[in-house]
Amino acid sequence: MNQSAHRFFCQNIEAGMLGEEETGHALRVLRLGTGDIIQLLDGNGTSALAEIIDESKRGLRFQVKSVLKNKIETPDLHIAIAPTKNIDRFEFFLEKTCEIGIRKVIPIRTRNSERKEIKLDRLQKNLISAMKQSGHYYLPELTELTDFKQLLKSELSGYQQKFIAHCENDQEKQLLSDLLMPAKKTLILIGPEGDFTPEEINLAKENGFVPVSLGNSRLRTETAGIVACVTAQLKA
Amino acid sequence: MNQSAHRFFCQNIEAGMLGEEETGHALRVLRLGTGDIIQLLDGNGTSALAEIIDESKRGLRFQVKSVLKNKIETPDLHIAIAPTKNIDRFEFFLEKTCEIGIRKVIPIRTRNSERKEIKLDRLQKNLISAMKQSGHYYLPELTELTDFKQLLKSELSGYQQKFIAHCENDQEKQLLSDLLMPAKKTLILIGPEGDFTPEEINLAKENGFVPVSLGNSRLRTETAGIVACVTAQLKA
Repeated sequence: MNQSAHRFFCQNIEAGMLGEEETGHALRVLRLGTGDIIQLLDGNGTSALAEIIDESKRGLRFQVKSVLKNKIETPDLHIAIAPTKNIDRFEFFLEKTCEIGIRKVIPIRTRNSERKEIKLDRLQKNLISAMKQSGHYYLPELTELTDFKQLLKSELSGYQQKFIAHCENDQEKQLLSDLLMPAKKTLILIGPEGDFTPEEINLAKENGFVPVSLGNSRLRTETAGIVACVTAQLKA
Repeated sequence: MNQSAHRFFCQNIEAGMLGEEETGHALRVLRLGTGDIIQLLDGNGTSALAEIIDESKRGLRFQVKSVLKNKIETPDLHIAIAPTKNIDRFEFFLEKTCEIGIRKVIPIRTRNSERKEIKLDRLQKNLISAMKQSGHYYLPELTELTDFKQLLKSELSGYQQKFIAHCENDQEKQLLSDLLMPAKKTLILIGPEGDFTPEEINLAKENGFVPVSLGNSRLRTETAGIVACVTAQLKA
């Protein structure tokens, strides 16, 4: 695979056309044109080399030269996390965990959440950009903001490990790195700046979530998410 | 120790006065005044509870009520890293590694460095703020920007482990997490966006640095620094 070709996100490579945003980036920013070779990523493991055959601003057209289906290499890690008041911090979390390797992020609304809404479009763009930059072939799934209690009520039986990282003093808490087993589908809950409430923690425990600590330091929400992701990567 | 008292950085607690910046924060932002109890951190392990006795804007005066000398708990990890073109990314690295636990950061100027200068004052403020927020008692040391080759020529015999994380293909590279031994004074080199040059890598190897990989993903500079720091924390 030509590593030096510019990468573009294209959910449907077979359609032979880039979306509006990627087209703009190719033509106006990178000044690519007919005959140039580009790399396409569908975010679902497929990468392709293609030649630009038409420079229409509404949608750059390409012809595929070669296609590769890449295996997924990231651990099957899902993190449900309360987006931070300052959205930059949450965007940083998304970018870093996408680089390091994560499969799914579930933004949650909890009792102490300082942020009650997110702009999914914008966050999605960040993820795509991080995927392209980091050389991954799979785009992490990002869901709508989900109510924490609704999440606990939903079908979670597919997870082989479920953890809740909270800051309450709790004798039973062990280190995530001691408990996490490799190669298992895992869900980790990370609370907001003001932490989960005792009620939320109990509800999670009743639903099979094991309380864990991420170490002795008091970590910000986005840092906790990143540390959990690195931990899963190191144990994989 | 009263956890709810606001924390202030005060390098010389015995002098009984806060610096200008912390005074401004106490009086104008937090609206504290005479009789209020504050927590003081000297960044070198000492924490104290004190009562405000005078609200002079030039320097808030306090009387110490109790003093505690706290043990250092972070691994003896030093990271020499090329500051990123976008300084936000470097600031994020500083904040995150301060939260997670690091002893010293050495910003380096390498052949491919996109940033040739840093504002130490501003970065220092970020570190102080991260220390206060994360509940650490030790402020990581942050040095001036140092030429990479000068760093290699300096006295490094105090380090018990020295690693260079680079992106060149290199058969001998092993995972940092496999090589890192706990409880040893460690220096890890992290290159700029354009990586270390082959010449720089060879020079580091000649000086006893062991090439390491941080995993399969292509990580940005600041992400590599954070992943190295979490790795050291998990192995400690």
